[in-house]
Amino acid sequence: MNHIGKLFQVNIYGESHGNSVGVLLDGVPAGISLNEEDFALDLARRKSGGLGTTPRVEADEVILESGVFNGYTTGGAILIRFLNTNTRSKDYSKLVSHPRPSHADFVANKKYHGFQDYRGGGFFSGRLTLGIVAAGVVAKKILKGVSFHTEITNLGGSTNKEEFKSLLEQVVNEKDSIGGIVRINAGNVPVGLGEPYFDSLESTISHLLFSVGGVKGVSFGIGFDGANLKGSEFNDCIIDEKGTTRTNHNGGINGGISNGNDLVVNVFVKPTSSIGLPQETFNLKTKRVESLEIEGRHDAAIILRAQVVLEACVAIALADASLISKAYQGENKNE
Amino acid sequence: MNHIGKLFQVNIYGESHGNSVGVLLDGVPAGISLNEEDFALDLARRKSGGLGTTPRVEADEVILESGVFNGYTTGGAILIRFLNTNTRSKDYSKLVSHPRPSHADFVANKKYHGFQDYRGGGFFSGRLTLGIVAAGVVAKKILKGVSFHTEITNLGGSTNKEEFKSLLEQVVNEKDSIGGIVRINAGNVPVGLGEPYFDSLESTISHLLFSVGGVKGVSFGIGFDGANLKGSEFNDCIIDEKGTTRTNHNGGINGGISNGNDLVVNVFVKPTSSIGLPQETFNLKTKRVESLEIEGRHDAAIILRAQVVLEACVAIALADASLISKAYQGENKNE
Amino acid sequence: MNHIGKLFQVNIYGESHGNSVGVLLDGVPAGISLNEEDFALDLARRKSGGLGTTPRVEADEVILESGVFNGYTTGGAILIRFLNTNTRSKDYSKLVSHPRPSHADFVANKKYHGFQDYRGGGFFSGRLTLGIVAAGVVAKKILKGVSFHTEITNLGGSTNKEEFKSLLEQVVNEKDSIGGIVRINAGNVPVGLGEPYFDSLESTISHLLFSVGGVKGVSFGIGFDGANLKGSEFNDCIIDEKGTTRTNHNGGINGGISNGNDLVVNVFVKPTSSIGLPQETFNLKTKRVESLEIEGRHDAAIILRAQVVLEACVAIALADASLISKAYQGENKNE
Amino acid sequence: MNHIGKLFQVNIYGESHGNSVGVLLDGVPAGISLNEEDFALDLARRKSGGLGTTPRVEADEVILESGVFNGYTTGGAILIRFLNTNTRSKDYSKLVSHPRPSHADFVANKKYHGFQDYRGGGFFSGRLTLGIVAAGVVAKKILKGVSFHTEITNLGGSTNKEEFKSLLEQVVNEKDSIGGIVRINAGNVPVGLGEPYFDSLESTISHLLFSVGGVKGVSFGIGFDGANLKGSEFNDCIIDEKGTTRTNHNGGINGGISNGNDLVVNVFVKPTSSIGLPQETFNLKTKRVESLEIEGRHDAAIILRAQVVLEACVAIALADASLISKAYQGENKNE
Repeated sequence: MNHIGKLFQVNIYGESHGNSVGVLLDGVPAGISLNEEDFALDLARRKSGGLGTTPRVEADEVILESGVFNGYTTGGAILIRFLNTNTRSKDYSKLVSHPRPSHADFVANKKYHGFQDYRGGGFFSGRLTLGIVAAGVVAKKILKGVSFHTEITNLGGSTNKEEFKSLLEQVVNEKDSIGGIVRINAGNVPVGLGEPYFDSLESTISHLLFSVGGVKGVSFGIGFDGANLKGSEFNDCIIDEKGTTRTNHNGGINGGISNGNDLVVNVFVKPTSSIGLPQETFNLKTKRVESLEIEGRHDAAIILRAQVVLEACVAIALADASLISKAYQGENKNE
Repeated sequence: MNHIGKLFQVNIYGESHGNSVGVLLDGVPAGISLNEEDFALDLARRKSGGLGTTPRVEADEVILESGVFNGYTTGGAILIRFLNTNTRSKDYSKLVSHPRPSHADFVANKKYHGFQDYRGGGFFSGRLTLGIVAAGVVAKKILKGVSFHTEITNLGGSTNKEEFKSLLEQVVNEKDSIGGIVRINAGNVPVGLGEPYFDSLESTISHLLFSVGGVKGVSFGIGFDGANLKGSEFNDCIIDEKGTTRTNHNGGINGGISNGNDLVVNVFVKPTSSIGLPQETFNLKTKRVESLEIEGRHDAAIILRAQVVLEACVAIALADASLISKAYQGENKNE
Repeated sequence: MNHIGKLFQVNIYGESHGNSVGVLLDGVPAGISLNEEDFALDLARRKSGGLGTTPRVEADEVILESGVFNGYTTGGAILIRFLNTNTRSKDYSKLVSHPRPSHADFVANKKYHGFQDYRGGGFFSGRLTLGIVAAGVVAKKILKGVSFHTEITNLGGSTNKEEFKSLLEQVVNEKDSIGGIVRINAGNVPVGLGEPYFDSLESTISHLLFSVGGVKGVSFGIGFDGANLKGSEFNDCIIDEKGTTRTNHNGGINGGISNGNDLVVNVFVKPTSSIGLPQETFNLKTKRVESLEIEGRHDAAIILRAQVVLEACVAIALADASLISKAYQGENKNE
Repeated sequence: MNHIGKLFQVNIYGESHGNSVGVLLDGVPAGISLNEEDFALDLARRKSGGLGTTPRVEADEVILESGVFNGYTTGGAILIRFLNTNTRSKDYSKLVSHPRPSHADFVANKKYHGFQDYRGGGFFSGRLTLGIVAAGVVAKKILKGVSFHTEITNLGGSTNKEEFKSLLEQVVNEKDSIGGIVRINAGNVPVGLGEPYFDSLESTISHLLFSVGGVKGVSFGIGFDGANLKGSEFNDCIIDEKGTTRTNHNGGINGGISNGNDLVVNVFVKPTSSIGLPQETFNLKTKRVESLEIEGRHDAAIILRAQVVLEACVAIALADASLISKAYQGENKNE
């Protein structure tokens, strides 16, 4: 469903070619300063225009429709809208009968029985991540103190950042696409966030990350490479009473709960599904596998723009966990 | 929290050294045949006793406490209990002041302010996965028709199954531990399960998987290795009107919705944290890093017993998605 | 919170003097015909302008912002907005220090620590019921077949409809207000809606009704008058195999589940809190009880306009229950 | 469903003739002292045995199955069980074909398609209120400081307490039953509990109350009688800066939020449906309306035992609201 979160609740809405896309936030404490400028930086990080991103550029102006008064949150629901302005009218309906490979076209038609808004991918469009980024901005304000550092650690198989530019140029020229791995590092996360059994931090963070189109893998700390280590090598030795660990193979989480070390999340983003190269796929009308050429403007590496979206997902999960944690503060036997 | 699911709701409870552990299931349709024997097979797969597993063996007898009448579910809440019988009384309290590395000891003490039940890990104990396995058995009954095939594809870095036995022997001898990767394959999943935006199948499946202790990575289809592929290589060509794809790099899910191909989930389980080898970790009493020797009986490779638990997680998520999908069936424009 | 519903989810937003008020609907099945005109009738029933209602008249034009394509719901989230146009700028801030009796002024200031949007009552404004009415229209479409009949059975103490007009005239002249009782009757409700234990139909219906400002009592069937009956008088004798009962003291619900008879709900709406007459209330600045005169345009009997809102609440609860019921359909031992 | 609450979560389970009934509590903060004796007083208030109650007396011994360690809550899920011991085996199946009037027999059979556990009413049995009472005990501990006073203000139409005894004697002799009105008064409720729009205190309290069998009306403060008052009479004048009001027609709640005055809730409990007198009802086998005589032991006035159950419902709603309120505490502009 389009709703997530227990106390910091995020409801996403909109489709690529409707009036607007955006997000309805609920459970934001009153008294947080918030205005349009607060969103500028993160929205800019999501913007297209650079190498490897689509030439379709949208204004992405924030409209704070409700829940903010005199520059502060009121405790009411906050509706944030982004108008859809730069939509190109063309015939998208052929994608219903000739579905793009690795896209939602085929499943959407089955699931929604032909009533889906197929224009520009409908609500499967990457454009809905605008709402995620906006929610992330508010989440970071709730978290205050937590710092985020996000980067691409693998682009199209390469882990050498100096190669990234030439790799992108090559892929753009080939009309192909690449994916890669994003690492999000959150510092100053307090000890104790996360609610076992089912709302471990890994659970709530991955839940949000996997809702973003193109995400196909999530790991924490050393991730899948940890399969090569023995327990004696993997275990993170605690070295002080704050819980600092010598290594951080667990990515800052034990038993589903933040342990005070940096939270480290790795996200695999698959290569953009839409490519300029012709591809084979089944045509439901002719009942044959036929070549399909996807028109229009694409991101050769959507991972570039996805970084801030994935960071926002982590922030949203942490913000919710931090409000819940506050509710349960109580007696302290340790003192 | 200990509650998950929208229509098929799973509530887990218990701790290692309490009366019992188990699960309270809600939203199970009336009229599903259910008795104690239905649980035997999956519980046996979770049992210890073999090479690389702990010698502590529990009876794990199922008690169907409510919600079943004359061999069928009644539509009421189903409480399933497992008595804790084989608990060893020893002094666990030292683990509060000298917390085990990579365990929940340290964070539990911080989060629950000293009131946590630290005996045998309390509710962080692997024993709580009994409830997950039991819930999985009921989930599979709701799903009827979906088939599961689960195996270890990587054990301690090795992908060669013939080596597994000798590897385990070596690790047991060294008093160390290993992890690895489990692959769950679900066949005959109908097209259309999963509820975007936030309840993509990847989201709900990973949410459950990451609630299991030791899980540190989840990926779908080809997983993180897909970073090496270009879009033209990664994309799964659709070859017939049922949506069958030539490759299955997406692991049976597009746009967060099942596409009718095999669902393929990879789960990284870290090496068991408890090892026989002495390890360094901070002693909160002496305020020094000191060697800790963990007494007792351990699983050298908890991944062996985790397989059926992780399979159960996938089944639980699919069962919930399948009930939701049923609710939304309606008009069909395609017909 | 501003979110309700399990499968048919309603999220309300907005405040009296913001850009807009409205509702975000989720979980609406794809393929339901929906356009702006569908809302006209119910919105008209909520409109002001008649005797006993405020002279402030708003256009209340429906904006279907998302989730509808080619006249049908798409399965995506449906955002419905109503612009706030006829807002009068005046100094509302004095109501913070001199709070109106029986209003939310005092508690809002305490709860939101002074950050609440106090203009026109903020999100406590009756204007938010526009979203409820809109949600009700969609709910009725989901329910198809259920018929609603709603009327005032008690106005300011009178149960004689012929007196209502003169009563209203009198109250308007006195600058006072009146309340009363609304009865909602829902016909053709299928047997079996409602989910015990906690989601009895009475529970979910009352939950929604009590969220509407001014509602202070909810009863079913004969209601509180049933205290005068003995069991032998109260019990509704079943007279046929469809479950028709001779009397309907239970209001169509047994054990929290619809029994196929008319659903009968009674709602007490208190007299409008805002009256033209001067009233005493504590002034937080002067620290004295002082007379307060509330300026502006009021509804002498908000109950008149509340009828369709309360009917919408019942429809929303039934729509959600009906989707849930569909999900759990399964085997049938009775056949 | 059998689950309620956002932070203080209550899951009820069991049926009249199963192993046990009880409740699974989640979200209880760690460090609350809790032991079996804490339940004694409230369980005694629910006990039968007195005039107007059933002669079936159960031991109702509390079993704290999990979540409590060394006399304190651990932060884990708390399972509380009550064994079913005093069950009489008799043939209940005839109630399926000859359903009792005003009971759940008919709807249960329709909804659960014949698979319901019909023995002793299954999960519709009043015995499930044991779990509610137990949850209420824990809720009151979370609330600390809030005081409850609960009484019957109307018994079988009479508001004169001195008549109650003779009234009960008469009804018992007649093999009939009576209902009435319970008033719950909660003192020392802090200002600011309740979460508009949908989680007004009236909403969450009524939701819980209406889940209890036999409850058919809920009102706050003066309740339905307020229909006779004009706004100038109904409005509660605030007389000091704490928000104390001269009258309390609103029952301590404005805008869905507690205002610091006594919370006053009135609950109409219908006359017990099971009576000794023969009654007419449809026989689904013979297809005729026929006389039914209900065997066994009944409560002539279940309202007597319901008082503590309804009080528990109010406590549960307040406990949840109080945890939520704590989470949202933040900046304060008023200071």
